[in-house]
Amino acid sequence: MSAKKLHFGKLHFGLIGAGRIGRVHAETLAFRLPEAEIAAITDVNRDAALALAARCSIAKVAASAAEIFADPKIDAVLICTSTDTHAGLIAEAAKAGKHIFCEKPISLSLEKIDGSLAAVEAAGIKLQVGFNRRFDSNFMRVRQAVASGEIGTPSLMHIVSRDPAPPPLSYLRPSGGIFLDMMIHDFDMARYLIGDEVEEVYASAGVLVEPGFRNEDDFDTALVVVHFRSGAIGTIDNSRKAVFGYDQRVEILGSKGKIATENRYPNQVVVSGEKCVYTDLPLNFFMQRYTESFALELELFTKAVLEDKPIPVTGADSRIPVVMALAARKSLDEHRPVRLDEVAR
Amino acid sequence: MSAKKLHFGKLHFGLIGAGRIGRVHAETLAFRLPEAEIAAITDVNRDAALALAARCSIAKVAASAAEIFADPKIDAVLICTSTDTHAGLIAEAAKAGKHIFCEKPISLSLEKIDGSLAAVEAAGIKLQVGFNRRFDSNFMRVRQAVASGEIGTPSLMHIVSRDPAPPPLSYLRPSGGIFLDMMIHDFDMARYLIGDEVEEVYASAGVLVEPGFRNEDDFDTALVVVHFRSGAIGTIDNSRKAVFGYDQRVEILGSKGKIATENRYPNQVVVSGEKCVYTDLPLNFFMQRYTESFALELELFTKAVLEDKPIPVTGADSRIPVVMALAARKSLDEHRPVRLDEVAR
Amino acid sequence: MSAKKLHFGKLHFGLIGAGRIGRVHAETLAFRLPEAEIAAITDVNRDAALALAARCSIAKVAASAAEIFADPKIDAVLICTSTDTHAGLIAEAAKAGKHIFCEKPISLSLEKIDGSLAAVEAAGIKLQVGFNRRFDSNFMRVRQAVASGEIGTPSLMHIVSRDPAPPPLSYLRPSGGIFLDMMIHDFDMARYLIGDEVEEVYASAGVLVEPGFRNEDDFDTALVVVHFRSGAIGTIDNSRKAVFGYDQRVEILGSKGKIATENRYPNQVVVSGEKCVYTDLPLNFFMQRYTESFALELELFTKAVLEDKPIPVTGADSRIPVVMALAARKSLDEHRPVRLDEVAR
Amino acid sequence: MSAKKLHFGKLHFGLIGAGRIGRVHAETLAFRLPEAEIAAITDVNRDAALALAARCSIAKVAASAAEIFADPKIDAVLICTSTDTHAGLIAEAAKAGKHIFCEKPISLSLEKIDGSLAAVEAAGIKLQVGFNRRFDSNFMRVRQAVASGEIGTPSLMHIVSRDPAPPPLSYLRPSGGIFLDMMIHDFDMARYLIGDEVEEVYASAGVLVEPGFRNEDDFDTALVVVHFRSGAIGTIDNSRKAVFGYDQRVEILGSKGKIATENRYPNQVVVSGEKCVYTDLPLNFFMQRYTESFALELELFTKAVLEDKPIPVTGADSRIPVVMALAARKSLDEHRPVRLDEVAR
Repeated sequence: MSAKKLHFGKLHFGLIGAGRIGRVHAETLAFRLPEAEIAAITDVNRDAALALAARCSIAKVAASAAEIFADPKIDAVLICTSTDTHAGLIAEAAKAGKHIFCEKPISLSLEKIDGSLAAVEAAGIKLQVGFNRRFDSNFMRVRQAVASGEIGTPSLMHIVSRDPAPPPLSYLRPSGGIFLDMMIHDFDMARYLIGDEVEEVYASAGVLVEPGFRNEDDFDTALVVVHFRSGAIGTIDNSRKAVFGYDQRVEILGSKGKIATENRYPNQVVVSGEKCVYTDLPLNFFMQRYTESFALELELFTKAVLEDKPIPVTGADSRIPVVMALAARKSLDEHRPVRLDEVAR
Repeated sequence: MSAKKLHFGKLHFGLIGAGRIGRVHAETLAFRLPEAEIAAITDVNRDAALALAARCSIAKVAASAAEIFADPKIDAVLICTSTDTHAGLIAEAAKAGKHIFCEKPISLSLEKIDGSLAAVEAAGIKLQVGFNRRFDSNFMRVRQAVASGEIGTPSLMHIVSRDPAPPPLSYLRPSGGIFLDMMIHDFDMARYLIGDEVEEVYASAGVLVEPGFRNEDDFDTALVVVHFRSGAIGTIDNSRKAVFGYDQRVEILGSKGKIATENRYPNQVVVSGEKCVYTDLPLNFFMQRYTESFALELELFTKAVLEDKPIPVTGADSRIPVVMALAARKSLDEHRPVRLDEVAR
Repeated sequence: MSAKKLHFGKLHFGLIGAGRIGRVHAETLAFRLPEAEIAAITDVNRDAALALAARCSIAKVAASAAEIFADPKIDAVLICTSTDTHAGLIAEAAKAGKHIFCEKPISLSLEKIDGSLAAVEAAGIKLQVGFNRRFDSNFMRVRQAVASGEIGTPSLMHIVSRDPAPPPLSYLRPSGGIFLDMMIHDFDMARYLIGDEVEEVYASAGVLVEPGFRNEDDFDTALVVVHFRSGAIGTIDNSRKAVFGYDQRVEILGSKGKIATENRYPNQVVVSGEKCVYTDLPLNFFMQRYTESFALELELFTKAVLEDKPIPVTGADSRIPVVMALAARKSLDEHRPVRLDEVAR
Repeated sequence: MSAKKLHFGKLHFGLIGAGRIGRVHAETLAFRLPEAEIAAITDVNRDAALALAARCSIAKVAASAAEIFADPKIDAVLICTSTDTHAGLIAEAAKAGKHIFCEKPISLSLEKIDGSLAAVEAAGIKLQVGFNRRFDSNFMRVRQAVASGEIGTPSLMHIVSRDPAPPPLSYLRPSGGIFLDMMIHDFDMARYLIGDEVEEVYASAGVLVEPGFRNEDDFDTALVVVHFRSGAIGTIDNSRKAVFGYDQRVEILGSKGKIATENRYPNQVVVSGEKCVYTDLPLNFFMQRYTESFALELELFTKAVLEDKPIPVTGADSRIPVVMALAARKSLDEHRPVRLDEVAR
């Protein structure tokens, strides 16, 4: 299958997984991307697949992922299943010659990630991992400021990344814990925004807001110091509970200035009342906050495949945040700074 | 045609006019409103109609509006043509029993508007006029604050409404001038936000930024004081040239507080540089600023028709802003405050 | 008395009036201006004078203003008495060769103002009127932006000026009403900020928040449109009741940009809570808001006298706002726009 | 000398040191605190002492600190000399029975601090150390929010504290380095704001903006993670060079909300220009930013002495930040987290 061939038509997707994120991507492909078409969908929960197919006018509900891989009309697959199935599905998709958009992370195991990347490389297909926040207009603007020299050479960075409310406790163990499940986005963001690699991390964490986390060997609050090759120092803070809403900000100090982002709000209204001056709370849910970034990552993936251009998130981009998460956990367990090369070359 | 019948299916639209605003509405109907379908499109410029039909998968490109009115499969029409054609198209559409979404204003002539409203009433169909700003999340929030008593009884209001750059001079005369073309949105906003009727206006205006306006008997800058029945006093200021972008704000003082909106920005990034602390400019174009409001007005129209519920913008809502604009021009010409009932009952 | 003589020493003040504003000025002179010394104080309420003398280490409590005028050691007088006494005191002070700092307005009568200005001119002494807001860092910055061309040629201006709570009803009649008592500061501000003269005003007003104002022939809410010679259009809004605090802002649109001020807050703290994102209320009282401006106006007066340089607020500056207030009242009474030259040349 | 005796009069100060901070305090005492009087001043640079005495009407210029300690009319001393002299002067002042306000830190040596505190305790006099930022209206508001439970239990804190420009390299070695000279204020702030003690720190630092720091064994950029007893985690970042001005902010996440401060600006003006929306830079110098806090700390010290009430900054408050700074340096040198009890009990 050549990009040339695709260029004159649409990109035909097979969607594997009709859960929350699968629905988000399906709506983007169906309603916002004229260049894309969802040719087939599958989910272990067939009812979910049927419902989403109806909503998005998807012609075929496949019995299995295998059926999608076998469909010659399908150019690319969207893997929106649980993390433990990603590596296997990537291997099969690569073997079938399908381009792949896979939700993050590929796996909690570096070996499996390396296997996936090798399979992708061998098949010569394109793989993009769903680090959607790179495509948020705020973070793109920060990246542009750093890349263009607008704020000079970065020296200090703070990433704040907090959820409005903790997930169910049952979610925690399979997720891999706060570093692999939640901070992984921020590990990616740190590398992306500064444009440099992290050499060492130092992690702190605690159970400060939801005592039940203790039984799950997980943490509701975490702070990691990241040391870049350049000498720049950053922090990432995660909390599972910011009662006022989704709190996602970054600030970077550079030799020529500082750049900082604020949260997104549902409106730009300020009320001056008898007790205080107030605004509504910031957007409360990642799907509202990152709506545009979810659409843009798929648009860029679709274009990159159709025009045979580089994918905006590389194989290394999908692997390094997992290395960072593993190093952070090791740092926490051993109560000392840990170099990334202690965890993986 | 009964709403009941429609309730189980989609609302089928005929789109008349494939210009700028026609394209905006077509994309909303095609990509964002599952309950809507564009069954046919027409435009005096057939190429424009063909292009938009291709973009939005519209099955039929009609030769004329008449062909659309005659099509029994079409439930509602979207009138996106030039203002001088609105009244005639509304009359025909009403006769054909089609529900109507028409861009503002219906006409620059009160007689024609009254004729249109009578035709709509006689036909028992629904008519909505495109005062999209009512559906902007900022202005909805302001309206909610006033309606709920959050800021008490309003006493003073300021509406600021400025374009980033003047239109071509050739645009001015057919447009009816700054009061009918530009401030008409703000006249609607004033009534909507305060929830009260205006009794009197006092208008000032000048040619302060673009000398060419003088030859067109028009103004690039205008300020109107509006007096509400309740005694509340408001101002509306319009400028054709706010070099920093689209400047659309409102603030209301009430007995229990103040509410104010800010502009929308492309991002929430603040840079502290060597000379100043700065942000990017606010959104520069009404289509970016009001994207969501354009979608929401069509969604609410579609639902109101499908469920046979009241339209969110009434016939009076479409007529009174024209009365206000005519009174404002009379006030300017006669250099004195003018009551609305001097212009029309 | 020559400026040269003074240059090597301090400026010795006689303070007439130990009320609220007298106390503010006394503290500035005593504690913040090394170049000034209060040599004597007087007040019809002798206890008030004694108390302030003790607080500010003022050596002499004079029995009357006449005693102060007769004191050869006194270089300048500060007139902080009620408005109806200003013109008489200015005449006496001028005759005695004392420089004068007088609270605004000189008088509610143009004839008396003209008499005062003539007496000042004849005596060759310096007179400054207490339009302190000119010396507020926000409004100075706005003036600088207009004067330097930073925002180009002004076309639209909005001044908002609201008190936190109405004064006692007994205050109203002697005060001259909302235009002469409250908006007079804003009339001065309008001329100062734009750097141009107003030709015509159009006034609206109402009793919207405090019904008792009706019995006093006064208004708690007022809006005046001001037309500048250049064609620029401005509005001034006044309310006696902004429940959230002192609301004093201005915004100007120019051909190259817009400049706007925000209120002052007691701190720069933002709390994101469970219901809303909020800050404390803005400063609630003019003495907190304008602390620095009260000090700066006296500092500049003191320096202007000591160095024999021009006063920053001229005789015309003290007269024109009264003309504007009288024109505004006439506009309101006659329900039509009124030119300033209808009221006074 | 009893507080009772003082209560009916002023507090008479002896000022030791007429340098930059000495001048700030002298002006506060002379011009803003009616309850205080500077009875005498001394400085090794006699000209500086004479000039300040003239400026602030200080009656006596003493030849030495000893002369001040011997003066029975002096109730309290202000120690504004270089750090290495603080401990000795405190010992002498305590012996002379004078209350003491001393600039931070007492010493870079814990032994000397402990000696000073013991001398103070033995003499039964009051000692306050100049951690002025505690008295800044922003940080007081944050402390109030934490103490009152307004934001619930703190879990994460970030302190940002950056100077506009590096000091001369010659300043660095005597200063004790970035942790003892600069971050010491932030170590105090961390304890004060959270109202809890720090158990462990982890420090990172680098020379990222001013290469000359390397030769001085100092750092221009530093980041320290602080672990509180409660489990809360904080970061402090310091930079010697924030080109846009003095950058001093804090943010705390609690179980019920978040509180954050912004910098102080010279005005509240926003300009929307052709390229960007901008404000002037934040206040650039600590004396402007912290003017009010310098006055308030002296006011509270004066009142505490006059009324024999507790000093708002205790002996422990003056000692612990030095322990934290020493632990931070040890953490940096040994590249591991360091508990405070490794450095001092």
